[in-house]
Amino acid sequence: MTTPKHLLDTQDWTVENIEALFNTADVMAQVLERTIKKVPALQGFTVGTLFFEPSTRTRLSFERAARAQSADVVSFAAGGSSLAKGESLKDTLKTLDAMQADLYVVRHAVAGVPHQLARWTDAAIVNAGDGRRAHPTQALLDAYTFRQRFPDGFAGKKLAIVGDIMHSRVARSNAELWTKLGAQVTLCGPRTLLPPELAGGRVSLTTDLCEAAEGAHAVMALRLQSERMGRGLLPSLAEYRARYCLTEEVMAGAHPDALVMHPGPLNRDVEISGALADGPQSVIEAQVKNGVSVRMAVLYTLLVGRR
Amino acid sequence: MTTPKHLLDTQDWTVENIEALFNTADVMAQVLERTIKKVPALQGFTVGTLFFEPSTRTRLSFERAARAQSADVVSFAAGGSSLAKGESLKDTLKTLDAMQADLYVVRHAVAGVPHQLARWTDAAIVNAGDGRRAHPTQALLDAYTFRQRFPDGFAGKKLAIVGDIMHSRVARSNAELWTKLGAQVTLCGPRTLLPPELAGGRVSLTTDLCEAAEGAHAVMALRLQSERMGRGLLPSLAEYRARYCLTEEVMAGAHPDALVMHPGPLNRDVEISGALADGPQSVIEAQVKNGVSVRMAVLYTLLVGRR
Amino acid sequence: MTTPKHLLDTQDWTVENIEALFNTADVMAQVLERTIKKVPALQGFTVGTLFFEPSTRTRLSFERAARAQSADVVSFAAGGSSLAKGESLKDTLKTLDAMQADLYVVRHAVAGVPHQLARWTDAAIVNAGDGRRAHPTQALLDAYTFRQRFPDGFAGKKLAIVGDIMHSRVARSNAELWTKLGAQVTLCGPRTLLPPELAGGRVSLTTDLCEAAEGAHAVMALRLQSERMGRGLLPSLAEYRARYCLTEEVMAGAHPDALVMHPGPLNRDVEISGALADGPQSVIEAQVKNGVSVRMAVLYTLLVGRR
Repeated sequence: MTTPKHLLDTQDWTVENIEALFNTADVMAQVLERTIKKVPALQGFTVGTLFFEPSTRTRLSFERAARAQSADVVSFAAGGSSLAKGESLKDTLKTLDAMQADLYVVRHAVAGVPHQLARWTDAAIVNAGDGRRAHPTQALLDAYTFRQRFPDGFAGKKLAIVGDIMHSRVARSNAELWTKLGAQVTLCGPRTLLPPELAGGRVSLTTDLCEAAEGAHAVMALRLQSERMGRGLLPSLAEYRARYCLTEEVMAGAHPDALVMHPGPLNRDVEISGALADGPQSVIEAQVKNGVSVRMAVLYTLLVGRR
Repeated sequence: MTTPKHLLDTQDWTVENIEALFNTADVMAQVLERTIKKVPALQGFTVGTLFFEPSTRTRLSFERAARAQSADVVSFAAGGSSLAKGESLKDTLKTLDAMQADLYVVRHAVAGVPHQLARWTDAAIVNAGDGRRAHPTQALLDAYTFRQRFPDGFAGKKLAIVGDIMHSRVARSNAELWTKLGAQVTLCGPRTLLPPELAGGRVSLTTDLCEAAEGAHAVMALRLQSERMGRGLLPSLAEYRARYCLTEEVMAGAHPDALVMHPGPLNRDVEISGALADGPQSVIEAQVKNGVSVRMAVLYTLLVGRR
Repeated sequence: MTTPKHLLDTQDWTVENIEALFNTADVMAQVLERTIKKVPALQGFTVGTLFFEPSTRTRLSFERAARAQSADVVSFAAGGSSLAKGESLKDTLKTLDAMQADLYVVRHAVAGVPHQLARWTDAAIVNAGDGRRAHPTQALLDAYTFRQRFPDGFAGKKLAIVGDIMHSRVARSNAELWTKLGAQVTLCGPRTLLPPELAGGRVSLTTDLCEAAEGAHAVMALRLQSERMGRGLLPSLAEYRARYCLTEEVMAGAHPDALVMHPGPLNRDVEISGALADGPQSVIEAQVKNGVSVRMAVLYTLLVGRR
């Protein structure tokens, strides 16, 4: 088994690569639970975080994952930076390469930037979200969370994702990963936010939430980006809530052991009912915790565990 | 002796708890002075700093205190964050819990937030300032600084605090802590900034600075938040300075060995004369240095030293 | 040989001091290339970075240099800070000294601030750029990069620097350092940006780029700060480019082995042609990498290597 040098998309990773990563994450979860939480696995390695677009949760999760293995972390956030607007992306990366990291975690509003960076540096690249395209570590931690509850695997299982599918890299990456692992995926949302080209293979589309949730083993609500409302793409908030808020009634049609998932942050009682988010089916907190374990496994695999 | 799990207020800590903390701070001060300044006491622990309100000084002091004991630090500052405005505090904490810290240092503009967080996480919480309510580590380092100069203790001693008492968590926390330890506290400022409900027990109020300083063993000037002026609460700057600026003449009425204190940052020659701030009675630099020792002791006590 | 306590300017450092620093940087470059990149040389020391003016590249380079030697890093950036506008510089430093660092790396928009800070703290100070005055570590890494390619030294060599000389601390510091080491320096730019007082000793001025490059062993293009254009000091962009863009034709008049340098970030095809920046004469990437080695050597020398 050869492991790719980068994690740009889950497409480049085989099912075998991904299962090996999940097994490593199982070990990392134990490391994270120990009283003495630090292991020297990545001592001497530097992880650079390049967040051209802000993301508190994802950045904190990666930093924790790096430090828990004794890696050094050097952080760049575009907000407080003096990077010149006129500078090319190539020169920006060359500038940031002043930190001489072994691996860069990259988040950028433009799709494909992490792939471009991978061509310009010797360091490994982890895509932490590029435009609407991909967010592979989010999909990996979501699938890992499902596998903890359904250890018999993904074959014959059904995942429903509901919300603004069009603008969601989380939806795209999960659809790609879960179908690769053998599941069916139904994407659900208002017609204007449901790109027809995503249908095909094991992916289907619907505008009807109850149809999407029907028999599903996991239903994932996406965050409603209300700043996108009123541009003609989205209905009114009241209308959206009435048709697409994930509630206990909707979940009644799902598989009895179905999981309720959300990548966070939540708009309670907009895209998901507060009671459901805090209820027994919810694995939202487990997703957060598994985010660290899975990212520990990604950093470990790319830096020292490649075969 | 049992030590509380959190440091939310000094109210929850007994005199015995506080004296044990001060003794630990004495050891930490020695650690801080050593040529090799790092001790592995907190290796494997992660301290998360959650600053919803900016505070350069307090954040730096806690970070230094954590790193000097080999803890990992993961930082969140609201300024550069992507946290959604609409998100509830609970969901925000759940998001930040992505860093999976063992202890969170929390500063927030709203009173009671650290207490609320303590209910929602398994981690220990240190209150680094909540609204006007409390700032317990500031009070602890102020009292610790006094104890270095007056090792015979607080009984029969008098502390005067002068300035905008109404908006000051520093004043509230010091009044609470010093009276618990046995001192008398006089709070002084313009009548509009002197909440009558703070009087009682060993705390008295006065609008007369000379009366407040009379016989005091320590006089603490508070920073004048000039952005609050002109809203009717504060007199003009010239008038404030004439009546409430801490000067050598005012200190002439205090105890001969009296200390001059200030939590910083200073407005020289507004609330305190520059000559006094730099003079022999001033312990303002010692307060800064002791801030690290006392916070080292707080982190150590909550993470590994609880009994 | 005695080593100065601070690195405020290269003026205070003797040629012997600088050669010792370059030899240390040679060792550090090897450390940086090792598989296990971390050495415990600075374990127990705290490096504070005080960036009153933003500089992504320089900050990242210093942080990496500190962490690669196991120092702790505590960072302050003015952007996200609560420092009061009215507070004096002295009180600001006293506040920041809450981090109790052993060495402060200081960048400030006002010339002389690092020198002032050196008077107010016991810690060592490294000037990371003050106003238009000096940027000594940039000059040291530029000279170090030259010495790697021309190991026979600086005597009889010629450096040309082209661009907005008036506002450039990089130009001033390089002119000072290279002439001290024995080279000739020609500063080139539009007459309005060429301060006559810089001429003298081994430094000459010209408004003619071909004359400046003639026979030079290194030609350094400075970044054009286009935000300064249109204030009467600078010609139009088109005119600037026509007369001062560093191109392959200009380099044809230089020494056959001449190096092309740039402190970054680049405006491609404004002050330097993209082909030249990516071509075989360019050492721009080496400058970035050497930035870490030279700064490792500076930190090491000031903290543990002084004699």
